[in-house]
Amino acid sequence: MATNNLPAATSLLQTIDSPDDLRRLSIEQLPQVCAELRQFLISSLSTNPGHFASSMGAIELTVALHYVFNTPYDRIVWDVGHQAYGHKVLTGRRESFSQNRKLGGLSGFPNPDESIYDTFAAGHASNSISAALGMAVASKLNNDSPRRNVIAVIGDASISGGLAFEGINNAANTPNNLLIVLNDNDMSIDRNVGSLNSYLAHITTSKTYNNLRYKAYKLLRKLKLISDNGKGSIMRFNNSLKSLLSHQQNIFEGLNIRYFGPFDGHDLPAIIRVLNDIRDMEGPRILHLRTVKGKGYEPAEKNPSVWHAPGLFDASTGHRLEKAPSADQPIKYQDVFGNTLLELAKQNDNIVAITAAMLSGTSTATMQREMPDRVFDVGISEGHAVTFAGGLAKEGKQPFVAIYSSFLQRAYDHMIHDVALHRQRVTFCIDRAGLVGEDGPTHHGAFDLAYLRTIPNMTVAAPRDEHMLRHLLFTAQAQDCGPFAIRYPRGKGRIVDWKCDMHSLPLGKGEKLRDGNDVAVLTIGTVADRVTEAIDRAQKDGLSVAHYDMIFLKPVDEDLLREVANRYRHIITVEDGTINGGLGSAVAEWLEDNNITDVHLIRLGLPDKFIPQGTPAQLSKLCGIDADAIYNALRSVSGDKGNQQ
Amino acid sequence: MATNNLPAATSLLQTIDSPDDLRRLSIEQLPQVCAELRQFLISSLSTNPGHFASSMGAIELTVALHYVFNTPYDRIVWDVGHQAYGHKVLTGRRESFSQNRKLGGLSGFPNPDESIYDTFAAGHASNSISAALGMAVASKLNNDSPRRNVIAVIGDASISGGLAFEGINNAANTPNNLLIVLNDNDMSIDRNVGSLNSYLAHITTSKTYNNLRYKAYKLLRKLKLISDNGKGSIMRFNNSLKSLLSHQQNIFEGLNIRYFGPFDGHDLPAIIRVLNDIRDMEGPRILHLRTVKGKGYEPAEKNPSVWHAPGLFDASTGHRLEKAPSADQPIKYQDVFGNTLLELAKQNDNIVAITAAMLSGTSTATMQREMPDRVFDVGISEGHAVTFAGGLAKEGKQPFVAIYSSFLQRAYDHMIHDVALHRQRVTFCIDRAGLVGEDGPTHHGAFDLAYLRTIPNMTVAAPRDEHMLRHLLFTAQAQDCGPFAIRYPRGKGRIVDWKCDMHSLPLGKGEKLRDGNDVAVLTIGTVADRVTEAIDRAQKDGLSVAHYDMIFLKPVDEDLLREVANRYRHIITVEDGTINGGLGSAVAEWLEDNNITDVHLIRLGLPDKFIPQGTPAQLSKLCGIDADAIYNALRSVSGDKGNQQ
Repeated sequence: MATNNLPAATSLLQTIDSPDDLRRLSIEQLPQVCAELRQFLISSLSTNPGHFASSMGAIELTVALHYVFNTPYDRIVWDVGHQAYGHKVLTGRRESFSQNRKLGGLSGFPNPDESIYDTFAAGHASNSISAALGMAVASKLNNDSPRRNVIAVIGDASISGGLAFEGINNAANTPNNLLIVLNDNDMSIDRNVGSLNSYLAHITTSKTYNNLRYKAYKLLRKLKLISDNGKGSIMRFNNSLKSLLSHQQNIFEGLNIRYFGPFDGHDLPAIIRVLNDIRDMEGPRILHLRTVKGKGYEPAEKNPSVWHAPGLFDASTGHRLEKAPSADQPIKYQDVFGNTLLELAKQNDNIVAITAAMLSGTSTATMQREMPDRVFDVGISEGHAVTFAGGLAKEGKQPFVAIYSSFLQRAYDHMIHDVALHRQRVTFCIDRAGLVGEDGPTHHGAFDLAYLRTIPNMTVAAPRDEHMLRHLLFTAQAQDCGPFAIRYPRGKGRIVDWKCDMHSLPLGKGEKLRDGNDVAVLTIGTVADRVTEAIDRAQKDGLSVAHYDMIFLKPVDEDLLREVANRYRHIITVEDGTINGGLGSAVAEWLEDNNITDVHLIRLGLPDKFIPQGTPAQLSKLCGIDADAIYNALRSVSGDKGNQQ
Repeated sequence: MATNNLPAATSLLQTIDSPDDLRRLSIEQLPQVCAELRQFLISSLSTNPGHFASSMGAIELTVALHYVFNTPYDRIVWDVGHQAYGHKVLTGRRESFSQNRKLGGLSGFPNPDESIYDTFAAGHASNSISAALGMAVASKLNNDSPRRNVIAVIGDASISGGLAFEGINNAANTPNNLLIVLNDNDMSIDRNVGSLNSYLAHITTSKTYNNLRYKAYKLLRKLKLISDNGKGSIMRFNNSLKSLLSHQQNIFEGLNIRYFGPFDGHDLPAIIRVLNDIRDMEGPRILHLRTVKGKGYEPAEKNPSVWHAPGLFDASTGHRLEKAPSADQPIKYQDVFGNTLLELAKQNDNIVAITAAMLSGTSTATMQREMPDRVFDVGISEGHAVTFAGGLAKEGKQPFVAIYSSFLQRAYDHMIHDVALHRQRVTFCIDRAGLVGEDGPTHHGAFDLAYLRTIPNMTVAAPRDEHMLRHLLFTAQAQDCGPFAIRYPRGKGRIVDWKCDMHSLPLGKGEKLRDGNDVAVLTIGTVADRVTEAIDRAQKDGLSVAHYDMIFLKPVDEDLLREVANRYRHIITVEDGTINGGLGSAVAEWLEDNNITDVHLIRLGLPDKFIPQGTPAQLSKLCGIDADAIYNALRSVSGDKGNQQ
């Protein structure tokens, strides 16, 4: 059996429509709530896929936080938010949870627009401490009465991000009562890396000092030898105890933040006790809990990486229903990248790969398995990943940096300052570009084309299919053209026989895919497919449509644009990125700069707003970049021609 | 007398054309080199202004590094680079140093395009460890023989940036021989903030353990009880010594990096000794030096903040020659901002201010002096500054975030994810926007207009003068329009009587500044002035030119554009930002989207390349956005009209 606890005959979870209902229960009833919550998630996520193992590991913590703190008056800020499903279920979204990650349904992440209990944006790692600190400081400035508690819940992977460090660093020197809960499961999506992580593993094993200190503190407090009313006395207490024990200093206390733990994050009474004890203390505090990712569901506990987001599964057996791709099906773009990178690295000793905690997500793991010394997973630190790549390039290596599009936003300055400024030869392999679907607004790779185009010396390309991706990767390692960005989408491609011979492409040169007379469609990336579909339909209406794949956004192919502007009165651009600053803008600029006044341009792209979650097909339709929208655009410019049928 | 040491009659410095020359000297001769180097900098910088105090404090370190290490084979990576003038002088640039920060002369920062001794881009803080780690790892992969040493030199302010933490975190878990030199002068430009800084102050005072450990290590090594050949033995040694002493753990060693120090950074023989001792050790190491900013020049030692970049001064007296602005002169834009912010904060209790180690540079210090509880200097951490502001806004405060344009690039994702996504009411006060002059390519605020325009929900504005800056600041606090970016330039404005009454502006509405018939010029920001100048000249040629100030880049004023497109066949846009994606692009997009085919657009802006250092006037000319260039553009579209004279 995969589950440890079955819900009791009388459901408690069904009675909890808000944390107020939870807080009416006795402590003794809470383990049942936890068991039911786990069962609820198992049942729900087995049929409507989502993030699984993180929330399973945070059940006791979630129940304890809402039990001890007065939410929503008190604020919980979840970092990333993979672990917040239990929180959603307990805060009035039990019924709507069946619509998790669906268009018009619940966001897969905490979302302030969805619930008052979701206090801050989540999705990009490491922001919780900074955001919660802002809220805690504001509460002090607002003189909120009663005191408003703010709790940041952050994982051991997220806390290694530079932003979290900046937040901790500032938290220690600003008056505030922030509580940081370190939810330490020794995992990110993959196994964790970095020295802070080793450090956490180390302090976990040296429990004695911390436990002793905590017990001594409780004793002294009971004896009224210390009080919580002044920060000073606490600090003196901590310092005395430290010199008394003459023991190693904790890293967090090196940064002047009081540390409690580590405690077993699944020992619900213990967590509630310690939360009650430290709840009203003055000053910033860190509570360190050890948790097990996937806790309470054996298959997930055994293989937490796979069960991070397992897809559909059989709840009773733990059997995952996702089929391994058969040989007659296309594979994912990330795997075309991963396999091709390994292939190139075998031929080119200078190639190294870097990723930022996305080893399996970007399939750089493929190269890592065969060449572990040449693959660097630097943990959640996109900025460092890029600057580190700049250093490697400076000494003659050819780094391929594989990062998801929306996370690479964190490294915009690093791309400018540490790579592009001196034309370092770094290849950016930008996965999850364009609409990603169910992960929603924080994860859509909507901005990369636009922000990459602002960077001098940067070559920006996007393949229309798997073969082109291979040619672009080959080109990046064959030609020294400085920084080179290649963006490609989430999910599968369309070519079964993806493993073509590779060749080097001329930089900044597009390709004509189809000739036509009435109108030209210019595309970049895999939107080419739906354009083909739209043109096929328009062709049946008697419209003659040309299709050009720009391949490169930058440098833009001016010869191609000149040809198109000479031949066609109508140009339509289609791109899977924001309408502000991408391909359509580049074409508009070129037309204006060249004083071409007899061409009508229609730009299709993502609208200038944040796009919600949904299936990729739903969202493409919503954004007006699906085949229908392209077909309609073709019809709109066709004049009489398009209306023959 | 302001100087401690006068050069000896026979100059040694004059004989040093490369570090090889330095390495031929005896250790006993080096103090004289230091004294001469200081005198050289005092003399040179008194007449050609630049960064002063940082380099003065790093003289012994600079000499010691080039003396002990085999540069340029060994690599020194300077963080930020304010401290690298001595390095420039010792590495073949003594003669050319008179052209420091001048167009065609030396860059004010290390610059790999300038010298083989400048190994990596510098200017934006905290990148040295990541870059140097990349170089060190590459060197290992390259099997460089003899071993190539890589040294990152980082200040105590820079090391508090998240990027530095990410670098340290990764350095500890990747095979490398990186040496990190922490140049700790307890300063950034202003006084340092943050808990890491308190921590550094603390370990400086607890010398005993570290000195004892270092001495014990040397003894054991002498007795051949330990060797440097294996990392294992070192680690065992460290661990044994630690348990032997049963003392506090050092924070860096908590992160698994061996720590040496603190040592007096002006004790040259001691630095050389310790560098020789640790030079060939395996694994990453941190050497902590305590230095005095401005060392050796009394006025600078006494007031290091002012002497960070003192401008012209009398070398013999230490009297600064910059005049205080008289009442009949315009003040700096930053001071219009600083004074106005305070004025608004007095009327609006919700206003708080945040800066990231730019308290005096952005003049948020003005508000801080009167309202210290409502001003947060978060140290070098632009990302945190923005996310922290998001948290403050979430709880009803109105944060004004004052950061230089080029540094705000570090917070691109934070603006998207933590502010714009949920329309948090945060005002970005973006100083040093556009060309900044002598600080060069790393400091020009070239990209902000373009990258801000990609962000949904973001209002983007730029004032043409001081009054408009005040109105925009007033508007941002008076209307809840979500995230609001206001960018303004470095340096002085032009209105003596800047303190006008303030009023709220209609969002996204521009203004007609001058009517005309032949051509319309659209501008954003303070380039309006030079457009006025150009139009005045063109007017004399008989050309009738209209001038519109857009004020807002986003939302763009479509009514204004419609009016302009209806009335004029020629439109010229002028902006002090990259030509890719800013105002000119917005206008080009609008013309194309509205199928307006009878208008000719000329876009003037910064070219798509990195712009070097020089005076603002020189650079504006170089980039084709000065009054001459605008005048020429006007002439070019004037047809016969423009050629009347």
